[in-house]
Formats: sequence, C-alpha cells, structure tokens
Amino acid sequence: MSDNASDKRTWFYDGVTPDLGIVHRVESMLYSGRSAYQGIEILRLGSFGLCLVLDGKIQSSEADEFIYHEALVHPAMLAHPAPRRVLIAGGGEGATLREVLRHTTVEQATMVDLDDQVVAVCREHLPSFSEGAFDDPRAHLVVGDARRFMAESEKAFDVIVIDLPDPIEDGPARLLYTREFYGSVRSRLSEGGVMVVQSESSRWYDLQAFAAINRTLRDVFRFASPYQAHIPSFSSLWGYNIASDSVQPATLDAAEIDRRIASRLSTSLRSYDGTTHQGLFALPLHIRTSADAVGSVLTDACPLSVF
Amino acid sequence: MSDNASDKRTWFYDGVTPDLGIVHRVESMLYSGRSAYQGIEILRLGSFGLCLVLDGKIQSSEADEFIYHEALVHPAMLAHPAPRRVLIAGGGEGATLREVLRHTTVEQATMVDLDDQVVAVCREHLPSFSEGAFDDPRAHLVVGDARRFMAESEKAFDVIVIDLPDPIEDGPARLLYTREFYGSVRSRLSEGGVMVVQSESSRWYDLQAFAAINRTLRDVFRFASPYQAHIPSFSSLWGYNIASDSVQPATLDAAEIDRRIASRLSTSLRSYDGTTHQGLFALPLHIRTSADAVGSVLTDACPLSVF
Amino acid sequence: MSDNASDKRTWFYDGVTPDLGIVHRVESMLYSGRSAYQGIEILRLGSFGLCLVLDGKIQSSEADEFIYHEALVHPAMLAHPAPRRVLIAGGGEGATLREVLRHTTVEQATMVDLDDQVVAVCREHLPSFSEGAFDDPRAHLVVGDARRFMAESEKAFDVIVIDLPDPIEDGPARLLYTREFYGSVRSRLSEGGVMVVQSESSRWYDLQAFAAINRTLRDVFRFASPYQAHIPSFSSLWGYNIASDSVQPATLDAAEIDRRIASRLSTSLRSYDGTTHQGLFALPLHIRTSADAVGSVLTDACPLSVF
Amino acid sequence: MSDNASDKRTWFYDGVTPDLGIVHRVESMLYSGRSAYQGIEILRLGSFGLCLVLDGKIQSSEADEFIYHEALVHPAMLAHPAPRRVLIAGGGEGATLREVLRHTTVEQATMVDLDDQVVAVCREHLPSFSEGAFDDPRAHLVVGDARRFMAESEKAFDVIVIDLPDPIEDGPARLLYTREFYGSVRSRLSEGGVMVVQSESSRWYDLQAFAAINRTLRDVFRFASPYQAHIPSFSSLWGYNIASDSVQPATLDAAEIDRRIASRLSTSLRSYDGTTHQGLFALPLHIRTSADAVGSVLTDACPLSVF
Repeated sequence: MSDNASDKRTWFYDGVTPDLGIVHRVESMLYSGRSAYQGIEILRLGSFGLCLVLDGKIQSSEADEFIYHEALVHPAMLAHPAPRRVLIAGGGEGATLREVLRHTTVEQATMVDLDDQVVAVCREHLPSFSEGAFDDPRAHLVVGDARRFMAESEKAFDVIVIDLPDPIEDGPARLLYTREFYGSVRSRLSEGGVMVVQSESSRWYDLQAFAAINRTLRDVFRFASPYQAHIPSFSSLWGYNIASDSVQPATLDAAEIDRRIASRLSTSLRSYDGTTHQGLFALPLHIRTSADAVGSVLTDACPLSVF
Repeated sequence: MSDNASDKRTWFYDGVTPDLGIVHRVESMLYSGRSAYQGIEILRLGSFGLCLVLDGKIQSSEADEFIYHEALVHPAMLAHPAPRRVLIAGGGEGATLREVLRHTTVEQATMVDLDDQVVAVCREHLPSFSEGAFDDPRAHLVVGDARRFMAESEKAFDVIVIDLPDPIEDGPARLLYTREFYGSVRSRLSEGGVMVVQSESSRWYDLQAFAAINRTLRDVFRFASPYQAHIPSFSSLWGYNIASDSVQPATLDAAEIDRRIASRLSTSLRSYDGTTHQGLFALPLHIRTSADAVGSVLTDACPLSVF
Repeated sequence: MSDNASDKRTWFYDGVTPDLGIVHRVESMLYSGRSAYQGIEILRLGSFGLCLVLDGKIQSSEADEFIYHEALVHPAMLAHPAPRRVLIAGGGEGATLREVLRHTTVEQATMVDLDDQVVAVCREHLPSFSEGAFDDPRAHLVVGDARRFMAESEKAFDVIVIDLPDPIEDGPARLLYTREFYGSVRSRLSEGGVMVVQSESSRWYDLQAFAAINRTLRDVFRFASPYQAHIPSFSSLWGYNIASDSVQPATLDAAEIDRRIASRLSTSLRSYDGTTHQGLFALPLHIRTSADAVGSVLTDACPLSVF
Repeated sequence: MSDNASDKRTWFYDGVTPDLGIVHRVESMLYSGRSAYQGIEILRLGSFGLCLVLDGKIQSSEADEFIYHEALVHPAMLAHPAPRRVLIAGGGEGATLREVLRHTTVEQATMVDLDDQVVAVCREHLPSFSEGAFDDPRAHLVVGDARRFMAESEKAFDVIVIDLPDPIEDGPARLLYTREFYGSVRSRLSEGGVMVVQSESSRWYDLQAFAAINRTLRDVFRFASPYQAHIPSFSSLWGYNIASDSVQPATLDAAEIDRRIASRLSTSLRSYDGTTHQGLFALPLHIRTSADAVGSVLTDACPLSVF
C-alpha cells in the first residue's frame, strides 16, 4: 500500500509578489463558495491545519491564529486601564472576539462584520477559532458595514479593534483604511480610548501599506505606534498599528505587562507576555528607515490598494 | 468585487518524472478518502472538470474520459465478429462498462473490481462516467481480485478488457501485468477471443511499461499489437495493447471499422471511427524503435513497477 | 556529500492555459538576453537537454527537435516530385534548414529570419540543431522580414516551409498567419509547389489557431490538409498544415513514402517514415469535429493572437 | 513586443518542509558547479538579486545579506570590551569578514573555510558581499577544516563567529554543531571571549536545530542566549546563539549598544542598532515554550541533521 503523505499532490499557491510565492500542501478542501462580497474557502493545509481563505488569501490558520490574534488584541486592551465596552470591526472568524472576551473587565463586545456568510462558515467549520465566543452573553454581533456603523452609532467604546481583510481593488474593505474612516473611529472612542488595526505585511520589501496606515493614523491621533509579529502560516512578519490620544503602549515595560495579564485575564496566553511585548514594538532599523521613506496619508480620494 | 478565477489558487501536481510535472488548477475537492487499497480523491479541475484520482494519479476526467474509454474498448470489441460475453478487470468508474454495453451483440458484461469503495464513490460523484451502466440488466459487478477470478472462473469470454491502475510498488495491481496473469486471461477467452489492456504511458521517454506489456503479450498470444491515443488530461500519449490468437485489429481498414460501428453500436461515438483507428495503430518510427529497445518479459518473479 | 540531482531546485513553468501548466527542472541557464524582437533564453532542462526559449515559450529541445522538424519538413518535400529551390520563413535554430538539405534534389535553400540574434545564439549554443547546415553551399541566409521578402522577391520556390514563432499580441509574427500573407506565399510557389506551416497546438481544448490556419489556407489554396505530431517537450500534440494547388500529401500511401525517402534522402530519419506519415494525417474524430467548429479565416484586419 | 517581466518563467523552489515551500522567480543563473564538498550556484532572483545557493539552499542574497550578517557579527563583537583577534569559521561569501573588519579594535581576522571554490566563486560573482574585505591587511584566509583548525591551533581569539552551512546528512558541517566542537571553540577563546553561531531556522514549527544548539552551548558555556532575526529572502525567522563564560549580551540596553556602535565602528550600519538589539533577544513566548520542549544536547555520537 502506498504512503499516505505522498499521495497528496494538491497545493495552495499564496502569491506574495510577482517574483515570490509560498506553496502549501492541501490535505482537503472543506468548503468552497462565494458570498455577496468575496470568495470563501476552508482548506486543511499540511503544515497549519484548517485555514480560512478569502479571495485567495489565507486569513488565519488553526495552528497559529493565536499568535496573530493575541498580538492584535492584547496590547491595546492592556494599554487601557479598564476596557469595558469594546468594538470589533471585521474579525469574521470569531477569534478576535474570543481574545477580547478573555478580559474580565469587558462588559460588552460588539462585533460588526459585513459578511455573515463568512461568520456562518467559520462557526461551522472552524469552531476552535471562536471557542464559543459568539454565545457569550457579553458578545453582540452586528451584520453590516463598519464604516456606516461608525458614522451612525452614538455609542462610545474604550477599545476599538479593526480586523479587516486586505483593501484590494474594488473590494469591500478599501475605504476602511483612510483618514476619514480613522477620524470616524476616533469619534467613537471614549475618553482614554485606544484603537488598533491589522496593518498588512511588514515585510521589509513590502512596507507601503504598513507605513501608510501608520502615517495616516499619526495624522488623526496624538500617538500611533507600529508593531509586528511573525505569523508562520503567512511566512511573513505582519504589521499592526495602535493609536490613541492618551496612552502609548510601546512604553509599558515587560514587568507591567505581565502584571496586567495576571490581574485582568481569565486564562493564560500562548504567545503574548511582557517579553513578547518588548519584541513586538522593537522594529529593526532597516524597517524603521524604509517605512519612513514610503508612508503617505491615505484618504477616501486616494485610498490604499494592495495587489 | 474580485474576479472569481483569480481567487482560486489551489493546484494539483501530477508528477511525470523527477524532472517534469503537470499542474492543474483545482476548483474544488469533492471527496478525499482512503479505501483498504488506495487513496481516493474526486477533484474538479479548471481544465477538465471532475476527475478521479487514485494514489495521487489522475485516472480519468469528465471532459476527456470518452477518448480514453472509446480507444480502450472499441478496437477489441469490433475486431471480434460478435462479442456476446465480455469481462472487464478493473474499470471502477463504470465508463469501460458503459462503452462495452453500447455493443448490441453483448448479452453479459461482467466487471471484476477489487475496490468497491472506488465504485461507490464514482457512482455517487461521477454519475456521467457510468451513465447508468451498472443498472443495465446485462451488467454484473463482482467485487474481488481479478487474478483470483481468472484462476477460479470456468466461464469463457469473447472479449476481456483489462483496465487496471498503475502497477505501483506494493500496490494491488502489480501482479496483474505478468506473463502468468496473461496466460490466465488467455485461458478464459473463447475461440476467436480478443483481449485488450491499458498499458501505461507511451511517452517516447517513458516507454518501459508500454513496451514490456507488449513484449509479454507476444510471449503468450499469437498476435499482440501496441497502439496509443492522446489523452489531454494526462498531457500525454497513452498506450494500449490488443492481443489475440486469431485476429489482428490493426489490419482492419477505415471503411470496415466504420461499417462495423454503424451496424453494431447502439449510439454514435465521439472519438473513435475508421480514421481514428488508423491513427491509433500508426506509431511513429521513434516510438517503434525505442519500444523495441526497452521491452522485456514481465513475470510474477520479476514484475513491472512504475514510479 | 549530497546527491547532485536533488540539489537542483530550479524549474521552468510553461503555462498552457490559466488552468494548466508544465514544469520542467532546469539544470542550467546558458544564455538569457533580449534581441530587438524578443526575449531569448537557452536552458538545459533535466528531461530534454538544451532548449531554445523565446518570449518564455519553449521552441525546441535537443532531445526531440528531430520529431518536430522531420514532421514539418518531409511531408511537403516528399509530396513534391523534385524540389530544387526551397524557401524557409523563420526557423532560426537551423534545424529546419538541416532537414531540407537532406534532400538530394535541393539546389538552393533560402532561409529568411528576422532575428539574427536568435540565429547567432543558436549557432553558438545549439550547434547540434543546425549540424553545419548554415555552412552548406546550397544554404542562403537572409536577415529580414518574411512578409516583405515574399512581397518583394521575384523568385519562385518549389517548397516553402513556414516555421515562425507564436503570433503573440504585438509580436513580430502576428501578420504572418493571415490570408493576405498566404496569398503572397502562393504567388511565390512554382508550378506544382507545396507549402507547409507550423500551426500551433493541436490540443483538443485549444484548437482555435490550428483550425483557423487550416480554414484560412483552404480559402487560398485548392488543397489544405491539417496534420499533427506529438512533441514530448511540449507535452502536447502539435499542429501543421500543408497546402498546394496540385498535390495532396495525405493521400500518399506508406509504401510510396518509404520509396521516396529511400531514393531522395541522403541520410536516414529517426521519426518520419511511411507508417508515421499515415499517423500524422489520421486526426481523431473529436479533433476533426472541434476544429470544424472553431476555424475562422484570419486576415490582416483580424489576425490570430495566442495567449 | 512582449513585456520583459512576463517572459521569465524560471523559478527556484526552496523547500521548507514536505508541506511547505517558497518559490522565487529566477532572472538568470550566473554559475552552476560543484566543488569537492557541495553544489554551488549563483542565481539572480527577481526579488532579492544575486544569491549564493549551496546544495540547493539559499545562503544569502544581495538585497538582504546585511540583515543576516549584521545580526550575526555585531552582538558578539560589541559584547566584548575590545575584540582584537577574531576567528571566523565558514563565511565563504566574505560578508561576515566584512562586518568583523568594521570594528576598529580588530587587529587580525582569521577566516577558516573548507571550500576555496565557494570563496573564489563569491569573490568573482558577488563582490559586493566581501566589499574588498579579503584584501584588508588584517584579514587572513585559511582553507581548511574548522574542526581541525580549532584542535590544532594554539592561538587565542577574543571573538569566534561560526557561520557554517546546514548540518545536512553526510555533509561537511555535520560535526561542527556538537558539544565536542563547541568545547574546542571554548578552548580557543581568550579570557572574556565570546562566541556566536548561526543556528538554523527559528520558525516556530521547526525549532529543533535552534533549540538543540542552545541546549548544547549551555552545557559548555556559563551563558548561552538564543536570538533571532527575520531574513526576507529566507521568508523566515533565523536563529543565532551567543555564548560566553563572562558576558551576557542580552542584558545590554539600547542606549549602551548605540554608544558602542558610535565609538567602535568605522561605518554606519543598516539593520542593527540599540532598538534592533532589544528586538533580537525578545523571543515571543510560544517560541520560548516550544524551544524548551525540543532542545537536546548534540554530540559527535549523536549529531544534528536537518532535512
């Protein structure tokens, strides 16, 4: 009988640039469909287990989504003294919501996602991503456009987490990375509020989006700090930006981070702690230099477009 | 909204040699499992639609299986004056059976396949391949080993069609390409009987199996003729061998083939006719020369093994 | 010490359609440049040895160019009773010229190629392709545009062999596959003359170019016959069309072809003989049916464009 | 005329695991040969320019070798109060030597490399890697086995930099990652000496080598600290380990690193500074946890083997 592994000959091509790509062996394809907004696939990859793929791009994998989501959520949440009301824009898999709800201070977490089909597919095929978060009485799911929600809502939030897909040409997220949108986010923050946004690749040769988001946030907020984590399933460093008018998370030392984790989280974490926090914000010199050179302010008239 | 086609980034790698391979875009993966004998997948390929894949090798595709199966079945069937009892070894998709049953002379078609899971998966996911053939009252499906069936059966058949998977190392089909097996096949043919066997690639640089099967058949039968068809989904020429003690199909002219098709088939064909028949048997000189150089007799002690 | 073969990780991707491609292991890259007309590379492939690649498409390989060039040249040459003056359009590698010069009847072979850099690179890196043909006193090389040559020349030729690269969008060969150009070719043929043209893929799912060239030639000449050969390094069937106002090569029988080869060629051939000839012209039914459905007349106003 | 970029269809496959690989577009292949020890290629990649490839693995690229080499050399050099004599084991490209020679305290830098063909090919094809370092009067090149050199030399060195290729099965570097070899390195360090070793991938799912080298060094030295940098052309985090009986570079703060760079280096750096230093040593929690779980002591009897 032939060897099981070598029977599998199906590969997923994750194009990074026209000159570079990553190939992943596919064990099975659990779902392949198309919502009103995007192509949706659930693949099981040989290296990273179950993955959500939107419009041909891996969004997160079972094996390492904890690295991505802990880095996205906890620096902003811990920088705030006591976040009670939290807003999530995007985050269809439910893992961002799951991390937010680990904070015992949280009274209400509102998640606004445009594409309820993504949410439904993830709840069915990727239950470990949300780990029951959607059923938590503090969770509140709104199906709708995050931009409209910001414009129309009159609520105030202590932390806003923006976890949207890539701003691809003509895609639904394109106007959710602009100065106008971030102004709208700022107006929804309570006194002392903090926002954080997934900010695309921070690969050294592909910093435009990461740098432009930082540059745009600095135009809107008093403080805006870039940081990055290495996500194995992306074979890449990934960028984030945290912004606020009152706090600077990058200045918190490792011991303080560890204290806040111990006192405010209901469970232990796997990737994020005080030392990790120091590493997230310590961008190497060549990335700082290049990001300074390429950042520009994004506006509704002149938004970002990747690929 | 992004383009549907470019969203799809999943590819199937069909390795031909360590230096050469074919890649197919995969639209979806309908089934991925493993029987007692082999890995089984049903993929939908961008170019060729639904495909059966066994142990990582494409067996046949919705788009062009008619080319493969018409070339396999009709030369042998039409070379016989009036085939009534037909035996098929392998042929799990049911398409070989379908072609046999197009012949109005056929009274009984017995198909012996080891792997009833392949048969069940194909009936469920690839119904166009069998087109109801399994429900034809003339069809008789035996789940079992073809070698044992030949040894134990006392029936005689007018035509025997051997449509087995590759004889891979330690695979179930390895001893079904030997002189001993073909001797057993010969003993099951009625007077004037004809046998045909799918004979692996007839790529010019990969003729060992094709040539060895021909050489082995010439040791057992009075006549044995190689022929080939181009199968687009294999990106390759594919070989067959037809053998008999009484007839030589290669000598039938185009007009005679067309006459027999018209009088003996219940439906029209898409790939095979008199002219096609001439092309199947007209192997180019470089293939004849190379095949002569590499053919050897296969025995149970020294069987064929591909890859 | 590690194994030599597994060290090599460089691959050439030969895209067939957006859904299908061939990958070849590259052993070395001997030349990579760009003439005024096209990108030129000489690669050594694991399976097929040295290859000429123009604009990213394999043109011919050391291992199997004999199959392509014998099929291109000999049917037309042998269909003519005694070809003395021959014209080749394109054919930069020199292998078409080599095959033409095997015919002892030939007094002058004129080769018109636009790109003398291709000719020079091939003479340096692929000497086995021309095998000294350029130094034959009967050979005459003209660097220039084949269309202009046809229009301006006043000579008559017994056989014209058209061996041009793909008519890619904006490429130099685009207007060399039109009714106007073929009219010009016809006017350069002597009484009883024959022309042949390489006619792109004859893959069943990609017959547009092959069928359109045949349809266009039937508009210009009394007889025009399609034929095909399988070229291993293309992993494909490849099409040709032969046209004339007086002879029909497809009707010559195998014995007559073998007689003409024996009496008129100075050396033996490796791929082409009487039986091969029968196979070349015996297109299977599904190719005949599909080609009939897609062929259209190509004109300067509405030319062919592949990819 | 067709677009230059799309003409290029040659790709280098950098296999990471059987389930994952990176593909790089190849613009040209400048050198392809084989020394007594390994396969050597010089490729120009679309994304990263000229690269040295040994036994099918990318060693360093023109675009980003500065990240790798600055991270390898400067933490160890700056941790020592005033390194005068430096030994480099491996480092064939000359870039490690180049970084060592930036330190104005250095009086002699001895480089021991087994494979003078690698050194010669790099000097010819990759001159920007050594930037004239081999011609510096302080540089001293020894062609020979680093293990024998350590055993036989009686000199003492302030810093030893170990920059060897992967310890592949049966490769020349296999016994240069063991406790016995590191004991020999320790005996060649002067009082207060520091050693550093490139330590393979620090990908989270592939930490065995990185962790084992750290575990082995802790068996030999009083202090041994792991650190990592992200190397874009490897699409990966890359690990290093620094070891000493007297200093702990990880404890130096950013300001102190910046002061030492300013006072002791002759030129500015592109990737390494005080902030970068903090990031190098701040391994995230999930890497610390996994490395703890998999590290084992490497010995001559039971050495490391990658792939």
